[in-house]
This record gives sequence, structure tokens and C-alpha cells, in this order.
Amino acid sequence: MNVLLVIAHPEPASLNGSLHRFMADHLTAAGHSVRVSDLYAMRWKPALDADDFPTRDAAARFDPALDSRDAYMNGTQTADIAAEQDKLRWADAVILQFPLWWYSMPAILKGWIERIYAYGFAYGVGEHSDTHWGDRFGEGVMAGKRAMLVVTAGGWASHYAPRGVNGPMEDLLFPIQHGILYYPGFDVLPPYLVYRTHKIDEAAYARITQELGERLDTLFSAEPIPFRRQNGGDYDIPALTLREHIASGRTGFAVHTSG
Amino acid sequence: MNVLLVIAHPEPASLNGSLHRFMADHLTAAGHSVRVSDLYAMRWKPALDADDFPTRDAAARFDPALDSRDAYMNGTQTADIAAEQDKLRWADAVILQFPLWWYSMPAILKGWIERIYAYGFAYGVGEHSDTHWGDRFGEGVMAGKRAMLVVTAGGWASHYAPRGVNGPMEDLLFPIQHGILYYPGFDVLPPYLVYRTHKIDEAAYARITQELGERLDTLFSAEPIPFRRQNGGDYDIPALTLREHIASGRTGFAVHTSG
Repeated sequence: MNVLLVIAHPEPASLNGSLHRFMADHLTAAGHSVRVSDLYAMRWKPALDADDFPTRDAAARFDPALDSRDAYMNGTQTADIAAEQDKLRWADAVILQFPLWWYSMPAILKGWIERIYAYGFAYGVGEHSDTHWGDRFGEGVMAGKRAMLVVTAGGWASHYAPRGVNGPMEDLLFPIQHGILYYPGFDVLPPYLVYRTHKIDEAAYARITQELGERLDTLFSAEPIPFRRQNGGDYDIPALTLREHIASGRTGFAVHTSG
Repeated sequence: MNVLLVIAHPEPASLNGSLHRFMADHLTAAGHSVRVSDLYAMRWKPALDADDFPTRDAAARFDPALDSRDAYMNGTQTADIAAEQDKLRWADAVILQFPLWWYSMPAILKGWIERIYAYGFAYGVGEHSDTHWGDRFGEGVMAGKRAMLVVTAGGWASHYAPRGVNGPMEDLLFPIQHGILYYPGFDVLPPYLVYRTHKIDEAAYARITQELGERLDTLFSAEPIPFRRQNGGDYDIPALTLREHIASGRTGFAVHTSG
């Protein structure tokens, strides 16, 4: 199968760099085709701006969504954006790997999403009616593909526990796993997490690569997170709130996962 | 008082641009001193990387945290980073204004945080003992200052309701309000939110500026979000999990707010 590894860390001689090379080697040895987007090494342009749309009318008001739609439809996107979209089309699975910086992904990775998730490609797709509110949250161009996060954190696991001071890790990752990956249709696997990155000795590294290798071996067979399909009957449309009898009386991110 | 307005939108002739100018004018008319960080206009460098530390040993392994600490301690930070830190020191209140892109702040603003939140400035501050785990979550260099988010979203309010498909807006903003602002000591005011940005007509704009003006008029008197102080007795140290008798049996972001 085809696997795209996206990594957002500025130092190849880091834990993230090592785990990235481990994943590329492990997947290749298992017979998969691997492509890489090493965002720092590529010197990826992080900020979405009018320069991304070289053929737009420079005198007109810049609208990030509408200018993105026009460039995507007319084939006038910049080469760097089109190349990353091609990688996503090629991939059967995408792994986003990053250190947790200020409780989210590094800016360079956020900007990769913002720039390549064009209107008409990752959003603004599908009809809007009384029963269907766009191809999103379970439908979309990435339907049938898998995605997984590999995230490192300096803090302790207990700091990210259900009652930990940082908030639960699964909730911190919800805007990425549900809002960025499930939105355009990816099936999202549970994340692989490494805590206390400054305390990783040889024994811990051996354990991590063992576990991560097992996660890669089940990349195409593991059960995805059972997020609810937006257009599957669980939500009122167009309010897009969960219908009363679903997860009755409950609120928050967790209600969007079934079972 | 001194107010820093930070804005992350690429088009001055946008709703965000208009609201930014409204806020600057309103605060100035009320007698406050206003400074601005218009990140797109400044062409702010978004990605934290080794180039941020010009005097570091280029042959050594780059460590974003430790290199940041050394540069901050030795006064060898880049001029753009030091200037933004000075603005934060100067400010009595900071307003971060942005469109919600993929359920979080734009990359350029995330990178502003990552680059100016140096080790020794915004984190890695204070003693670590059995009763005190760093000056953070209620303590830190920003203690006594106020912060507020002004966020625009294309989606409907119901999509961000407690049972809305996107997740509750207050939970989507928790990693920013608690993890980025409360962490170094800001008192965080409830956010001002604008939904369905593509449907704002003159009447809606008049209502928005009326409401936003009232929020600015109470910037220094409104009650902050009552996040729990990390070192105030509610958390076990160093596990940093909420003690059993606090919000007993509950989990998730909401347990870190009292009352």
C-alpha cells in the first residue's frame, strides 16, 4: 500500500527524526511504498496568503476560501500546494508526526493543512440539502484512506490524563483527528503517543519502536476511532447538532464518537 | 491602560480587518494606549527553527527548548522575537484576534506563540518541588495581565454548540485559553465570537460592534474564566491530576474551571 509520512520537526537528530526514519524503514521492509513530506527539510511555506494565488486579481479583496476555490478549479495553484495534494491522492494511509507544541501541532504543519486543504478539495465539497450537509465528517475526497497521528510530548502521561491539568490528550487531539482528518473523510486510527521525551533511554526507545512497529503492522487492519457520520442520521441538518436520542443528555467532544 | 492587539488575517478589507480597526479606535477613544501586531502585515516568520538562534553552535543538535533558553538568557534572541516579548511586557491586556481555520488559530499566529514564548520567559519558570510545579497555570510572567480572544467562524453557532458536530466552541478554544494564555499567567476573559461570517450585513455589523465595544469597555473589570490554579491545592503534584474530592467523578476540559 502507499503510505505518506508527514513530519514537522526542525532537527533530524531528534527523537522525532529517529522515529520518522524507523517508520520509513519499517514500512518499506513490510512491502509498502513510502513517500515523505519532511516539512522543515522542505522549508515548507507555512502561512496561507495571497502569494499562494499568483493569477488572482491583485486589486481585488483577498478571500482565502474563494481564491482557494478558484485556483483549485482553474488549475492555477502553486506547484508546492499541488504536489502535496497529489501525495494525499496517492496515499492509502497518511501519518502526521509532530511534537506537541503549546497543546497542538507546530505552526509549519498547521500551515501545510491550511494551504493544501483547498476549497473544492478538502471542503466545500458535495451538495447541501435537508439530509446532506456537504461531503464531510465521514465523507469526502479522503474517504477510504486511513490517517494516524504520532505525537511526542515533554510532559508526563498523568498531566494529559482524563483529570490531568493539561486536559485529556484525546480531547487536545480532537480538533486534529475529527476536525482536520475525519472532516475530509479519513478513517482515523488511535494515535501513538510518547510522553516525557527528555527521559527516553535505550530501553524506552526499544519499547517505543516495538509498539510503533506493531501499530504500523496493523495500519490497514486496526479499527478506526468510531466518529459519527455527519450525514448518517445522528445529526439534525442543517443545525448539525446531535439528535436528542443520541448520547442523550451528554455534551462535549466525546459524544461524536459512538460505542 | 496598555492594550496589545494581535491580528492574524491576510486581508485588511475583511471583517477581521474592520473589527481590528474598530477595536483600535474604540480603545484609543477610551483613553487606552494601543499597540498592534498585525502578523500578516509584518510578514511574521511563522516557523520556529534554528535560524531563530543566530549565535548557537551550528554543528550541535538543535533543541528548540534549550536553544530558546540559552538565547533568552544570553540576550541573543532575534530582534523580531525580542520586540514581541517587549510588547507583551508593556501590555496590561492582550487581545488575540483571528478567523478559526481548521478549528484552531491560523499557522502564522501559532508560530508567533511558538517563537516568542521562550524557555525562561513563558515556560520553564519557577521552582519544581512537592508543592509547586513551575510558575504556570495561574502564575508566571503574565500574571496580572488580561487576555481575550476575538474569533470569527464561517459556520453556524449551532455547529459549535454543546452537542454541535464541530465540538463546543469553548472546548475548541481550551488549548488556547488555558494552554497558551492561562499557562504563563494571563487572566483570560470569555471570548467574543462571531459566527456565519459570510452573512454579516450592516445590521449585524452594527450589533457586533456594539457588543464588542461593551466587551472592550469592561476589559479591565469583567470576571475572568475561573480556571483552577495549578499550585493552589487542587492538583496532586507532580502527577498534576485533579485531587479526588475536586469535581469528583468528572473528567475533561471543564473540570479545570471552578464554579
